[in-house]
Amino acid sequence: MSTSLFFTSVVNHVINMGNFTRCSGWARNRSGQFRGWPNFMRTMATGGKDVGDCNCLERTEKCFVTIENMNPCLKRMEYAVRGPLVIRASEIEKELQEGVKKPFSEVIKANIGDCHAMGQKPLTFIRQVLALVSYPALLDDPRFPTDAKARAKDILAGCRGGSVGSYTDSPGIEIIRRHVAQYIERRDGIGSNWENIILSAGASDAIKSVMKLLVNEVDGKKSGVMVPIPQYPLYSATLAEFNMHQIGYYLDESRAWGMDIAELQRSLDEAKKHCIPRAIVVINPGNPTGQVLSRENIEEIIKFAYKEELFIFADEVYQDNVYDPKSKFHSFKRVLIEMGEPYHKMELASFMSCSKGYMGECGLRGGYSEVINLEPDVRTMLFKSISAMLCPTVLGQSVMDVVVNPPVPGEPSYEEFTKEKKAVLNSLAERAKMVAETFNSIEGVSCNEVQGAMYAFPKLDLPKKAIEKAESLGQCADVFYAFQLLENTGICIVPGSGFGQKAGTFHFRTTILPQPDKLKIMLNKFKEFHLKFLTQYK
Amino acid sequence: MSTSLFFTSVVNHVINMGNFTRCSGWARNRSGQFRGWPNFMRTMATGGKDVGDCNCLERTEKCFVTIENMNPCLKRMEYAVRGPLVIRASEIEKELQEGVKKPFSEVIKANIGDCHAMGQKPLTFIRQVLALVSYPALLDDPRFPTDAKARAKDILAGCRGGSVGSYTDSPGIEIIRRHVAQYIERRDGIGSNWENIILSAGASDAIKSVMKLLVNEVDGKKSGVMVPIPQYPLYSATLAEFNMHQIGYYLDESRAWGMDIAELQRSLDEAKKHCIPRAIVVINPGNPTGQVLSRENIEEIIKFAYKEELFIFADEVYQDNVYDPKSKFHSFKRVLIEMGEPYHKMELASFMSCSKGYMGECGLRGGYSEVINLEPDVRTMLFKSISAMLCPTVLGQSVMDVVVNPPVPGEPSYEEFTKEKKAVLNSLAERAKMVAETFNSIEGVSCNEVQGAMYAFPKLDLPKKAIEKAESLGQCADVFYAFQLLENTGICIVPGSGFGQKAGTFHFRTTILPQPDKLKIMLNKFKEFHLKFLTQYK
Repeated sequence: MSTSLFFTSVVNHVINMGNFTRCSGWARNRSGQFRGWPNFMRTMATGGKDVGDCNCLERTEKCFVTIENMNPCLKRMEYAVRGPLVIRASEIEKELQEGVKKPFSEVIKANIGDCHAMGQKPLTFIRQVLALVSYPALLDDPRFPTDAKARAKDILAGCRGGSVGSYTDSPGIEIIRRHVAQYIERRDGIGSNWENIILSAGASDAIKSVMKLLVNEVDGKKSGVMVPIPQYPLYSATLAEFNMHQIGYYLDESRAWGMDIAELQRSLDEAKKHCIPRAIVVINPGNPTGQVLSRENIEEIIKFAYKEELFIFADEVYQDNVYDPKSKFHSFKRVLIEMGEPYHKMELASFMSCSKGYMGECGLRGGYSEVINLEPDVRTMLFKSISAMLCPTVLGQSVMDVVVNPPVPGEPSYEEFTKEKKAVLNSLAERAKMVAETFNSIEGVSCNEVQGAMYAFPKLDLPKKAIEKAESLGQCADVFYAFQLLENTGICIVPGSGFGQKAGTFHFRTTILPQPDKLKIMLNKFKEFHLKFLTQYK
Repeated sequence: MSTSLFFTSVVNHVINMGNFTRCSGWARNRSGQFRGWPNFMRTMATGGKDVGDCNCLERTEKCFVTIENMNPCLKRMEYAVRGPLVIRASEIEKELQEGVKKPFSEVIKANIGDCHAMGQKPLTFIRQVLALVSYPALLDDPRFPTDAKARAKDILAGCRGGSVGSYTDSPGIEIIRRHVAQYIERRDGIGSNWENIILSAGASDAIKSVMKLLVNEVDGKKSGVMVPIPQYPLYSATLAEFNMHQIGYYLDESRAWGMDIAELQRSLDEAKKHCIPRAIVVINPGNPTGQVLSRENIEEIIKFAYKEELFIFADEVYQDNVYDPKSKFHSFKRVLIEMGEPYHKMELASFMSCSKGYMGECGLRGGYSEVINLEPDVRTMLFKSISAMLCPTVLGQSVMDVVVNPPVPGEPSYEEFTKEKKAVLNSLAERAKMVAETFNSIEGVSCNEVQGAMYAFPKLDLPKKAIEKAESLGQCADVFYAFQLLENTGICIVPGSGFGQKAGTFHFRTTILPQPDKLKIMLNKFKEFHLKFLTQYK
């Protein structure tokens, strides 16, 4: 199928999807019910071919699980970072491989914080330790540095039978949990108990495990969780899957995406009519916004959470990614403890990952949560609830160990490790600046400074005609824009509606991860496309 | 605390837990509500010390999440394989390290199928490939065989940016999914579509992902899933977590734990009053029972599932573990397809893992499901629902690749790989025989042949006085027995009530995984303990 034909079929499909609440989601109708999405996605995923050896469309009577009788929560769930646009991007990649002519020669995937995919190199020391624990015969190899060997031996000593192939305790290997606690102590200057550390297969796994504690329904009211808008869609997806109520609070774009307590209060008061608010999620540094919260802002949030009796989820996976010299990362744990009575005994879960920072080891699935001040009985239930999944990947745990226990001055790998780490972070800082400056230099685009994390979330001032055109296709204008950008330039970004945005505004999220040369090309292409788009719909 | 004091405190705690349905679970009261368990577990896990830096018992008013308002499903959920007995076993290990005197010098953990922990060595080829993909600098190393390098290069070519540190597609790397499909084709002689393969972080992850599709409630009736009794408690834990109805069907101990269709019908008819049956789980080879289903039995089950419109979950993680020369593994997929109309178009999910078989790579978390004949819209929802978790660990995927794509004749690693694989499987076969024979030689113990998998599930004929003693302590007799065994011999097994058993019967599950010398010692110790126990309660 040619690109234009394909795009027309997608658009037709979208038109046929019916009456959607504009921009609240990509594929939900007014009553919140699922409509049309599977056909749309299936067509996109397979280019219209039948899927697998299944041909159920002709024999519906024999499928016992149908779209009508399946889990309704999964139907509602959306995850824009891997949504239809990304599926189409993969399609285009295949078309390019097959020789289909396009106005571009490659797809640039700026949709997901996938560092190594965009050319970032793994840190040597991390991979040396991984190789050593995987294949301990290498412990005799003189080409491996002694500090890497020492780390590997410590990890192996913590593994039953001395093998990373054995199950660990469900919250992870004790020595690694202890290293995590020591890392947090060094970071915050405040004690951390290793028994409060739970290792996980990436931060997402940990977030879901803790969020699961709050699922409940009392007198017909479900538990509600406050999440920022825009938000990282893991949260909306998890809340949909768990059948919980999402309480969206808007970040203040005019104040560098800061958090405004009056807005927190407004959203909470509104939500109390429909649900029982139980928790607040804060992403700091922000995804997709790139903001870094000030200490004052964090204190206000903690006071608010205390007043409203909310469990705090501090998503701090970008804690190493702060670029703005005026900004500094403050952990919620530290601020909360330093605030003293009565705040220092509040329930807080903080999340970290080896997928972000300077490591970018997304595929290895390492992460942890520090969960403090839980009621002991609830804590026991948390630990029990993770036990049926046995344990997080031991190699992911091992990577986390290296991250929290890196080479120190005097160790043979210290210099190389530090050099590699700094090179990644410095380059990211440059790219953060380049991205925001470029967007701000383009007519109809404005972008807050990327203080931290790995994303920019620029605002698009779209012409009225473009919005009307999108409406006529039954699409959000930002989705229409994103598809046009992809089909014309190969650049894959995620429309703002996948993260949430104020009604009537349009944004998109792009990562700052393409390597500098490619990022320049991408931004130039973007600019060219955008100006053409403005002209076209003037 | 001394052992006897600790045990007394546990027992007292159990007494204080109130009125439990005997042996239906470990810690549930008659109305199904959670009672007392957290204190019990907390005490066991910490030896009575306060946990972490949390001291909420003195400040209940400040804990926002309490045992009363938390997720009720997680409170009900149980996972006996890592339950109180195992927690106590870990405690005892620490006590031994600290020099506490015991009537034994080490704890033998026969509670969990954790091969490497019990001394099994990882296969060289698997670990070589892992080291190579983790640290590709080793691709130049002449000490690594060319076939391991070829596997590693294929995997890396499938990784974005050539790094296992990048995210893969949510169902896994295409080339590995293709290898899995080819493996299934070779196994069954029947086509397999790689697009129906979903790689996962162990089989548990895959099972939960597919089970999640079935969660629903219609007219106040929840979805129900048929699971064998005895069953692997992942299923009961998952059904509790998902708030689904568990329909237990008894396996027939008198017929080598075979499945009796009349019993399936009985349990289903009974359950229809309370729930909407949606699926049937079959574990073959069986866990904890060790049975291998005959082809005829599988055909009967498929016919039953068709008649009752049930989705089939075929837990086939032990497919390489068949020891009985008269038994043969038949995949549900193959039988279902070979049965032809109308069965060959039934919905079926089959699960595999790299944790079992001859690999035993539990800690690396690799697995896959083959899901066939889904309604395309449901299939799309399944793929969407796994996308928010990004991807399973790439190193777990890599291990799965080696398992389904092992060295072939003519490749340099073929001989060593085959030798190592055979050594593991032959030794397991010997141990399977030794375990069943030994149990059957002991008064008051009977055990079906261990045809496959990694466990025996012997029946205990306990003296009336022992049952009364356990009752007086508020315990199931098999739990009482298991605690006594642990405290007196250091042998950790799992009581039958953790898996389910017919009322009035008592069993336990032991793995056959201790290495032969240690297994002999364990069985001798067991025999000695058991005979003493019989004498004591005669």
